[in-house]
Amino acid sequence: MAFLPHLQEVVNNVDGALACSVMGFDGIAVETHQVSGDDDLELQTAWVEYANLLQQLKNAADMLKTGAVSEVSINSERVITLMRLITPEYFLVLAMKPEGNYGKGRYVLRLAAPRVKAEL
Amino acid sequence: MAFLPHLQEVVNNVDGALACSVMGFDGIAVETHQVSGDDDLELQTAWVEYANLLQQLKNAADMLKTGAVSEVSINSERVITLMRLITPEYFLVLAMKPEGNYGKGRYVLRLAAPRVKAEL
Repeated sequence: MAFLPHLQEVVNNVDGALACSVMGFDGIAVETHQVSGDDDLELQTAWVEYANLLQQLKNAADMLKTGAVSEVSINSERVITLMRLITPEYFLVLAMKPEGNYGKGRYVLRLAAPRVKAEL
Repeated sequence: MAFLPHLQEVVNNVDGALACSVMGFDGIAVETHQVSGDDDLELQTAWVEYANLLQQLKNAADMLKTGAVSEVSINSERVITLMRLITPEYFLVLAMKPEGNYGKGRYVLRLAAPRVKAEL
């Protein structure tokens, strides 16, 4: 149940990272590590919306022949959001500045997913 | 209205590219260039689903403080899908093999978007 060290490691290893969270598909964050001073983006509101979309994607995956969804990213003007599925109930989400290191973010999140899964 | 050369250029410049399409948010493709022999993935079915999700994201963007969505990617077991908004009505979608060059795909799609927009 020690999620926080993993979330901190993700944020510390990615240039431009704003916050990292373990979330349920119900849109409720289990644990969050957020860089201080960036609360004005109201990331949680966006994440609840994104959790809903991920849930729909999961439901659609059976119908589609593209296989199970493992990773989704949504890039907007003010924030890049990377999401990686951990289990059928939970996913990791990383918010970054638009100028942040996108490739490193994907890489670090891929490494963190099995570690967080082991804590669930 | 000459979309095809732009779509062909995207597919030819990205290792592992399967297909590239200009799509409306109603899920109807305006024009598609698909590499032959990969029809079994039924990409169109997935794209209709994704168009629906993009539409929801656009609608949510006003409520969210993260700004307008410019790019979305959905990575599943058998296919990576990159989408880039062109106008409020149309977007570009690129399907790639999971082992394809993701970074190059994003780059080429970013270059193609204003060119395709100029043809609309």
